[in-house]
Amino acid sequence: MADTLYVRHGRLHYFVREVLKRVRVPATHASKIGDVLIAADLAGIEGEGVSRLPLFATRIRSGLVNPNPSIQVAHQEEAAATIDGDNGMGHIVAMRSMDLAIELAKQYGISAVAARNSNDFGIAGYYARLALEEQMIGSVMSNSPPAMLPTYGKTAMLGSNPLAIAIPAAEDAAPFVLDFATSGTSRHQLEDALRRGETIPPGLALDAHGKMTEDPKAALEAMRLLPLGGTPELGSHKGFGLALAIDILSGVISGGRTGRHLASAEASRQEVAGIGHFVIAIRLRAFTPWIKFRNRIKDMMRELTSSPATGAPRVYYPGEAEYEIEQERRASGIPIDPATASELQGLARQLDIHDSWKHLLKERK
Amino acid sequence: MADTLYVRHGRLHYFVREVLKRVRVPATHASKIGDVLIAADLAGIEGEGVSRLPLFATRIRSGLVNPNPSIQVAHQEEAAATIDGDNGMGHIVAMRSMDLAIELAKQYGISAVAARNSNDFGIAGYYARLALEEQMIGSVMSNSPPAMLPTYGKTAMLGSNPLAIAIPAAEDAAPFVLDFATSGTSRHQLEDALRRGETIPPGLALDAHGKMTEDPKAALEAMRLLPLGGTPELGSHKGFGLALAIDILSGVISGGRTGRHLASAEASRQEVAGIGHFVIAIRLRAFTPWIKFRNRIKDMMRELTSSPATGAPRVYYPGEAEYEIEQERRASGIPIDPATASELQGLARQLDIHDSWKHLLKERK
Repeated sequence: MADTLYVRHGRLHYFVREVLKRVRVPATHASKIGDVLIAADLAGIEGEGVSRLPLFATRIRSGLVNPNPSIQVAHQEEAAATIDGDNGMGHIVAMRSMDLAIELAKQYGISAVAARNSNDFGIAGYYARLALEEQMIGSVMSNSPPAMLPTYGKTAMLGSNPLAIAIPAAEDAAPFVLDFATSGTSRHQLEDALRRGETIPPGLALDAHGKMTEDPKAALEAMRLLPLGGTPELGSHKGFGLALAIDILSGVISGGRTGRHLASAEASRQEVAGIGHFVIAIRLRAFTPWIKFRNRIKDMMRELTSSPATGAPRVYYPGEAEYEIEQERRASGIPIDPATASELQGLARQLDIHDSWKHLLKERK
Repeated sequence: MADTLYVRHGRLHYFVREVLKRVRVPATHASKIGDVLIAADLAGIEGEGVSRLPLFATRIRSGLVNPNPSIQVAHQEEAAATIDGDNGMGHIVAMRSMDLAIELAKQYGISAVAARNSNDFGIAGYYARLALEEQMIGSVMSNSPPAMLPTYGKTAMLGSNPLAIAIPAAEDAAPFVLDFATSGTSRHQLEDALRRGETIPPGLALDAHGKMTEDPKAALEAMRLLPLGGTPELGSHKGFGLALAIDILSGVISGGRTGRHLASAEASRQEVAGIGHFVIAIRLRAFTPWIKFRNRIKDMMRELTSSPATGAPRVYYPGEAEYEIEQERRASGIPIDPATASELQGLARQLDIHDSWKHLLKERK
């Protein structure tokens, strides 16, 4: 079996751009999508990084995703807006939504943008982080194809709908970025476990027969994930309720689709996804002086991360672990496992951009 | 041992008002606080209902809570406002915050109000529901005294900070009210288990020695609740991260206190609580036509609740179970367990309003 490749993130970004341009994504969009995928790989969330590129390319080539969407503000009243994504790549629709939310929050202090007719956007935390540079809190939600059982349910009626919240932290520290699936686990975490040959703990997923499974392959085939909390006794109605609220915000308020009416990119029957997002921006200075806020957060995180720990070297706040991985990968390169490398190489061959693949491997670390 | 009392909710409301007026809470405030406590008891959340009244009365009489606060809008910029609660009862501060949020959302489509210098407000869902009559979504968060361990932490660094989201549902159906502690369990759920002589499942709380416990008494004494998710493998960083984000929104943005700097009403050393809230209102018609929204939600909930179930008669959406209990208790009365009844009777005696207690027992069901 081949070794894991380590590639420089700049070169990987170039490769992503070349692939996307080849399937008629405009260069500026290709670059932005590359930013999100590379951010996922840098943060150690491989399942949402370049490993998704072959699927994206296939869906664009099959006409299921619009490579060059005309994204429109369908409706706006003061701090509230609705966007129609024109079935464009989710990354572009979500970025446009957060950009608009930031503009509106500058004016109104808080804003919300609901987007419909979009697609899988990868890591929600990326878009939430866009608010940080503007001294704002960003929150990003999305619905997603059926993968989660309701509490007491037997059928996957809703997605593992992610919720991200980014909050400015101390100047030289990792930003606070909370980004999680409202199911206990997610497709990409199961794929990671499968790749590493690991089992999953009970309490996360059922198999096709409705039994608790520790086999990531069985879990991926059935896609009956349990809500965050796991069982009713441990609070699964909380994960379920949160996923449902996100589905309503992303799918009903936006005028889009919800629950079982969303199509999975992995399903055998290929359909337009119909995903929606919901994005909030909160301008901190509309509530409290910026310096005061920053000092308070700094003290709060210092107190938290220096509190006694067990089972780990110390307590981490959300986003710190990913930030540490990012620093390391910026220096030593992004690991590409052999299966993904082979898929990407195949994609380059298909698209007749084999030089781009070879370029990626040059000077690699 | 005495039997459980069943009392009519209107009479119980009258009793609450009489008690609060006796400790110098203005009549209008006493009535509003009564609304929240009775709503909790009607919904079957006894631990946040009238059982809290003796503690509230004691804290007011000890000068730890201001019975007649002068609640001020400390700062406002368009759709963003900060409120100073003047150490008033949390119920009154939270109601004022949501009232303001609703007014601002009428104008701007979405709004947020952060409140500081407040106290325990009982059930978050009550205030979220206030938005429903205005065809809005309401969301309410609060920080609370230290009770939850961070993921990998050994010290309770933050509260079991609740999050509530209320969404208008079909006209004749239960409103969608999601209301949960970001820890797996909560103080009042442990108290309920203790009262019923039940154990709790592993995965919710540690004892004073840092071991997982199934004994609600040991859990209450230690107050080291695990975040929603339970263990790192099952996603406890999600519950922890959510609690931390709520602490920042409620305590830092409001200019109030956070984490270990909040005082517990139950602690031996009596201090002012320093609790903060964060409230959001979203006017639905700023995004989508009302009738369209209502029909979509109706179809969505019908589809969800008629999906196959196991372990329960059917799938419920958030708020439905509580709504069913409420219908029943409006007809048959609210159960008051003997310990609570004895405490309330003692309180009536202390405050020299024994007639109000006798009034409560008349015509009881």
